[in-house]
Amino acid sequence: MSVTRIQEEQNRQGSMGQKYLVIEWLARRGVKVEDLASLVYSIQKKYVPRLTLEDCRESVEHVLEKREVQNAIFTGLSLDEMAEKGLFSEPLATMLCSDDSLYGIDEVLALSIVNIYGSIGLTNFGYLDKVKPGIIGKINEKKGERVNTFLDDLIAAIAAAAAARLAHRARDGCLSLGQEPSACPLD
Amino acid sequence: MSVTRIQEEQNRQGSMGQKYLVIEWLARRGVKVEDLASLVYSIQKKYVPRLTLEDCRESVEHVLEKREVQNAIFTGLSLDEMAEKGLFSEPLATMLCSDDSLYGIDEVLALSIVNIYGSIGLTNFGYLDKVKPGIIGKINEKKGERVNTFLDDLIAAIAAAAAARLAHRARDGCLSLGQEPSACPLD
Amino acid sequence: MSVTRIQEEQNRQGSMGQKYLVIEWLARRGVKVEDLASLVYSIQKKYVPRLTLEDCRESVEHVLEKREVQNAIFTGLSLDEMAEKGLFSEPLATMLCSDDSLYGIDEVLALSIVNIYGSIGLTNFGYLDKVKPGIIGKINEKKGERVNTFLDDLIAAIAAAAAARLAHRARDGCLSLGQEPSACPLD
Amino acid sequence: MSVTRIQEEQNRQGSMGQKYLVIEWLARRGVKVEDLASLVYSIQKKYVPRLTLEDCRESVEHVLEKREVQNAIFTGLSLDEMAEKGLFSEPLATMLCSDDSLYGIDEVLALSIVNIYGSIGLTNFGYLDKVKPGIIGKINEKKGERVNTFLDDLIAAIAAAAAARLAHRARDGCLSLGQEPSACPLD
Repeated sequence: MSVTRIQEEQNRQGSMGQKYLVIEWLARRGVKVEDLASLVYSIQKKYVPRLTLEDCRESVEHVLEKREVQNAIFTGLSLDEMAEKGLFSEPLATMLCSDDSLYGIDEVLALSIVNIYGSIGLTNFGYLDKVKPGIIGKINEKKGERVNTFLDDLIAAIAAAAAARLAHRARDGCLSLGQEPSACPLD
Repeated sequence: MSVTRIQEEQNRQGSMGQKYLVIEWLARRGVKVEDLASLVYSIQKKYVPRLTLEDCRESVEHVLEKREVQNAIFTGLSLDEMAEKGLFSEPLATMLCSDDSLYGIDEVLALSIVNIYGSIGLTNFGYLDKVKPGIIGKINEKKGERVNTFLDDLIAAIAAAAAARLAHRARDGCLSLGQEPSACPLD
Repeated sequence: MSVTRIQEEQNRQGSMGQKYLVIEWLARRGVKVEDLASLVYSIQKKYVPRLTLEDCRESVEHVLEKREVQNAIFTGLSLDEMAEKGLFSEPLATMLCSDDSLYGIDEVLALSIVNIYGSIGLTNFGYLDKVKPGIIGKINEKKGERVNTFLDDLIAAIAAAAAARLAHRARDGCLSLGQEPSACPLD
Repeated sequence: MSVTRIQEEQNRQGSMGQKYLVIEWLARRGVKVEDLASLVYSIQKKYVPRLTLEDCRESVEHVLEKREVQNAIFTGLSLDEMAEKGLFSEPLATMLCSDDSLYGIDEVLALSIVNIYGSIGLTNFGYLDKVKPGIIGKINEKKGERVNTFLDDLIAAIAAAAAARLAHRARDGCLSLGQEPSACPLD
């Protein structure tokens, strides 16, 4: 298929269609939407009393519909996979394969996801990235066999963004499903 | 009214209700929604052929519904007004009143607005802030009489964000008014 | 003193001279350089074996010499103090006085400090802001009597920046005092 | 050489030694330090009267000594080169090869460079990225033959950072070569 045709197809689908591709890419690296929803639930439960796991899953899916988020994920996961295949030259190869603590481009990509839902997600992102609960910890243990240098930061960022989105919606009274979308600005 | 009552009222209204207050604050400092729409039209016209001024006005209004954007505007305009009233001590008073070129907190607040619609707005923000077309130039001329240190960066950021939102929606085929909102993720 | 004279004086001193003013402002709000050094030590000790509290104090002082850091501190602390004096109108007054969890401009200012030393400080910033160890916890307890909405985020950011600076310098072999400064790029 | 050996070697050299590697990588993509210095001179000349091209070249070299800057460059240029070789799968392949205007990860990496010298560089970055003077325009013309999706943003960011560094140093009276480095905090 020519570049033009692919481009057209992509335009037609829009970022809505790309969401399912992103979910596939994450699954290929061992992360399911449910894992992300659980992370969101664990950090947001105490602030939003009637929060359900389903609310969290829905919020994660909305985050994954944003083109900026999708592009950060496509780029980060490609970097991880190419590092696994040994496609980088030095000094990048070693930094990526060892998840060098002074290599901060993974945090830079993650920040671009968090920022979409405003700065209130920053704290949760940093906390998740440090404490590594749930799926983040599991991914981290696989380091050695696999390169997950970008993956763990991306996951922490998606969860922090989905939690920030829920916090904004809870304040606006837009959390319950029957709500009119017209009154829910931050989506 | 007690702090609790005000908080409740604010929660009830949500960020939707605050939009009109933001528009009032901007008007008080000499900036109308139409001025912002014109800026958006001038930078986005060549990329979106059938763009109308009304599309731009609508996009600006959507940007002004985001709580993060509102808070950046409330904070920045308060800083400008308090500097005018001479409420700051040194060295901040002089930096704010002279719009010191090495004081970058106005850009920092502006960036938090731009980031909500992804990094593609960065270039337009910088360009508008440097070239100062339309209302930005007019505001800049008033410096001396008034303190507009934050205002000009905030305006450039709102316009850049509204332009980025239009670019994303045009790609998703969500620009025309009859479109189903369910297919338009980036709002 | 005229605005021009103050400006000249400020230029002459440079950001080096302003450091002592920043330290005074922080002390006025209950935070000493030693408190900041202790925070840095607590988060960086395990990564830099021979780290001393003196290294941490020195790193904090270097962070406080940066003009961007100084301006974020001057601006944030002024906002806290003006909120205490009741100088803001609504809805900002309530958001600042109650440290509203959806008000993220304090995190925005803090991020501008962290970024000066690269993205590796982001994780520590988020962690400190969530867990609130040492002086951050003490400041947080005073909320109610005082407005410390910006102060706690600024402190977490200064400590995260000073820790990131130490991490970069340790890698470059520039931590020990006798080292030639010419070989130590990240300052 | 084993990963451990390479890592040790890299640590020994520190970010100072990596500078020359970064300069080589940029040269391989058609960009010389002189090209970057000319860009800096063109945007900063009017603000710093006695500025020389040599000051600008020196400032660019200092920017290239920062580890965060180096890592953004290594990562971005690797992405460009791998896209040229057809190593990415869709949808990333098309976005990178066509420099899709809605792909913003190049701006995200660039921003991480600009931020090291504070937010005052943001405006110059956006302006350079929009107007594309000097080497940026030349690189942009090569698109089609080569993939320079990341390169042009990286160059604009390096120049904006070097200009911001000069602005800070000029204010601190640290521009002239005979100056004591101890009085020059922002390096």
